[in-house]
Amino acid sequence: MTVKESKSLKVGICGYGTVGSGTLALLQGNAKDIARKTGIKIEVSHVASRSLQVDISGVATCGTDPFAVANDPNVDVLVETMGGFEPAFEVVRQALANGKHVVTANKALIAERGMPLVELAQEKGVTLAYESAVAGGIPVIKALREGLAANRIDWLAGIINGTGNFILTEMMDKGREFADVLIEAQALGYAEADPTFDVEGIDAAHKLTIMASIAFGTPLAFDATYTEGIGALTPEDIAYAKELGYHIKHLGIARLENGWVQTRVHPTLISTKQLIANVHGVGNAVVIHGHAVGSTLYSGPGAGAEATASSVVADLIDIARAKVQGLAKPLVPTLGYTAPRDDLRTLTIEDITTEYYLRITAQDVVGVMADVAGELERFGIGIDAVIQKESDGKNVPIVLLTDKTREGELNEALAAIEALDSVVAPVMRIRVESFGE
Amino acid sequence: MTVKESKSLKVGICGYGTVGSGTLALLQGNAKDIARKTGIKIEVSHVASRSLQVDISGVATCGTDPFAVANDPNVDVLVETMGGFEPAFEVVRQALANGKHVVTANKALIAERGMPLVELAQEKGVTLAYESAVAGGIPVIKALREGLAANRIDWLAGIINGTGNFILTEMMDKGREFADVLIEAQALGYAEADPTFDVEGIDAAHKLTIMASIAFGTPLAFDATYTEGIGALTPEDIAYAKELGYHIKHLGIARLENGWVQTRVHPTLISTKQLIANVHGVGNAVVIHGHAVGSTLYSGPGAGAEATASSVVADLIDIARAKVQGLAKPLVPTLGYTAPRDDLRTLTIEDITTEYYLRITAQDVVGVMADVAGELERFGIGIDAVIQKESDGKNVPIVLLTDKTREGELNEALAAIEALDSVVAPVMRIRVESFGE
Repeated sequence: MTVKESKSLKVGICGYGTVGSGTLALLQGNAKDIARKTGIKIEVSHVASRSLQVDISGVATCGTDPFAVANDPNVDVLVETMGGFEPAFEVVRQALANGKHVVTANKALIAERGMPLVELAQEKGVTLAYESAVAGGIPVIKALREGLAANRIDWLAGIINGTGNFILTEMMDKGREFADVLIEAQALGYAEADPTFDVEGIDAAHKLTIMASIAFGTPLAFDATYTEGIGALTPEDIAYAKELGYHIKHLGIARLENGWVQTRVHPTLISTKQLIANVHGVGNAVVIHGHAVGSTLYSGPGAGAEATASSVVADLIDIARAKVQGLAKPLVPTLGYTAPRDDLRTLTIEDITTEYYLRITAQDVVGVMADVAGELERFGIGIDAVIQKESDGKNVPIVLLTDKTREGELNEALAAIEALDSVVAPVMRIRVESFGE
Repeated sequence: MTVKESKSLKVGICGYGTVGSGTLALLQGNAKDIARKTGIKIEVSHVASRSLQVDISGVATCGTDPFAVANDPNVDVLVETMGGFEPAFEVVRQALANGKHVVTANKALIAERGMPLVELAQEKGVTLAYESAVAGGIPVIKALREGLAANRIDWLAGIINGTGNFILTEMMDKGREFADVLIEAQALGYAEADPTFDVEGIDAAHKLTIMASIAFGTPLAFDATYTEGIGALTPEDIAYAKELGYHIKHLGIARLENGWVQTRVHPTLISTKQLIANVHGVGNAVVIHGHAVGSTLYSGPGAGAEATASSVVADLIDIARAKVQGLAKPLVPTLGYTAPRDDLRTLTIEDITTEYYLRITAQDVVGVMADVAGELERFGIGIDAVIQKESDGKNVPIVLLTDKTREGELNEALAAIEALDSVVAPVMRIRVESFGE
């Protein structure tokens, strides 16, 4: 098969870091195979990079100004791999306004400032694609928007930050402390110098926000997403959880129940029998539950230059295939629905109902277990399992699993427990996820 | 949003069994949500069923002749859920020839007689979709054709027959014999009265054939797929494998290496550390390895009316979205490539190279282990691990794992071992898959 030069898709890349350069490398290295799949050549014609250390002037026009790409009349698609809000937002906005398609790997941009871009893309009839923004190389956006489109999505839950999952896996396998593993993750390049985005769950909340919007047909609502990090977890919590038949994962959970949407990122106990509980290391995994299909799971590499570029280029292939068929407008609405729903309400974290893991540090005195159980009973909270460990000579950890409880009630019960004379430290509380079973 | 009656996609269903009726139920039960995703109503206007026990005449034209659907000028898409080769092939052929799109759940039809249909669909510029034919509700065809399209696929491996996986799981969990569990699977409705298709791996070979064709860009080649069933496995093999750190799964494996394609279905030892080794019960799972993304896994329900209908309706939604945008031809080539490759050759099973689990039943006499090891050594086959079990008073099982070996050599070594006086039964041989690691 010969592909005519004239029938090519011209790509401009803004941001030539790992993902941007990985995208060019993948397009070049696999050009023949990609052309056989699309019937068209995908050609990088313009690259804007803050620092042009890499000489690719033989391949494409090179410069430092991303707006030059957004305004380049020869560019069909702008690939945004700069990250951050500015100038990324304005670059993407100008490209869309100029009638260009945009492919972005920028989860923060889509989750926090995506709505006007989604609307502009729709108005202009161009594609705004972001497969690489969620779960790296795993085509989970495509699964949600297309593969599972016959379903009403009831809930989804994902390990969507590889750094956090690496840290939790090391803590579990080797009994190491959080702070200790974090330093190693930084040395290995898994975690940023400022690890806040990863370990506080903000990065996961960005991805969850995007998935929830597609799943439920609602506008992007990052501010409604509850976020809790993994920094307070101890190797003891991970070991106790395992003793009870659970692994602790930093999950992003979105659920739609009776017209109420909940989106939350926090450490979560998951039964070791669940497949997702056994996704360890830097891997990502998302479970999606549709009303017809039931639960399906998608796992793989959630980060890395090549894996992320795989999704960027998949988006470019979609656009190239559309160009070959002379498609006027994108087939699939940007967020999966032709118009977002506005009839759903947001559940606050106090109103969720789930089971809880509690670790209470108490003086090793007679009657302390009865006192704790009494406070829980007073708030109508049943106990499902208890581990009482050896005393360290002075204090004793009491570990228990509660029945399903509204978080507001639990908070009151925990305040009462912490007020007990025999309880010497704040209670550690971790939510348990049973995946609707 | 109001959807105009005139702008609807008209569907005719041929075959009103579990999947056909599940498709109608899903389209009706989730009509509002689906219309919000497509911007168009998807309407079942004609149903052909062998036995019209179910009265749906208020909903659609009903009859017993599938060709009436294929020739109904009001039908845009024919859904083929009859199964089998005839009349399914001719019904699908006529529908395509009449310029209708076709959605089929018929894996045998696509795998064994798909090529002329693929070519006819291309000639007519219509869609021939078959997501539901592979791995039920898991959108793995979409992942292969689109989500991972940036990659050259190196290999894929799947648990793609739920019946077989249920049987192996029961044998593992409860130490039960194959024949015993099969009877239960039939009673539960998981296995057909004639279980050949499931337990001999033919059903899996159909699905593997389809996935391999998309993965490597080759024509559908069912006859080139090697097939071995699970009927010879014993609970002892499953227990010994576990002792060595492996689960036994009935895998479909496709690999492209140095221009040679291998496709094979057989019982396989997989390290328990692999996620796919922990997919138990009736579930399906497919691991796909792309050169850029690495390994991604897709798991979920591989059968059942609702899960299969989920994929049928996803295909209908793709077609509906294309209709809304006035798309003239399908965006994605039926088998993922604009033209199939013809430069790849097929590797026979004798030429594959892998590790093997061997169980040798020998007389409990001095020197038998040395004899066995000597024969393996004579053929250049290294031993990686050995378990020698207690004698049952007369015979002793010798269980071992070999190093990587060409299957042709192994066959010769096994013949030599079986010729030893002390070896009293045919050697049990199970392939080991290390997923390219």
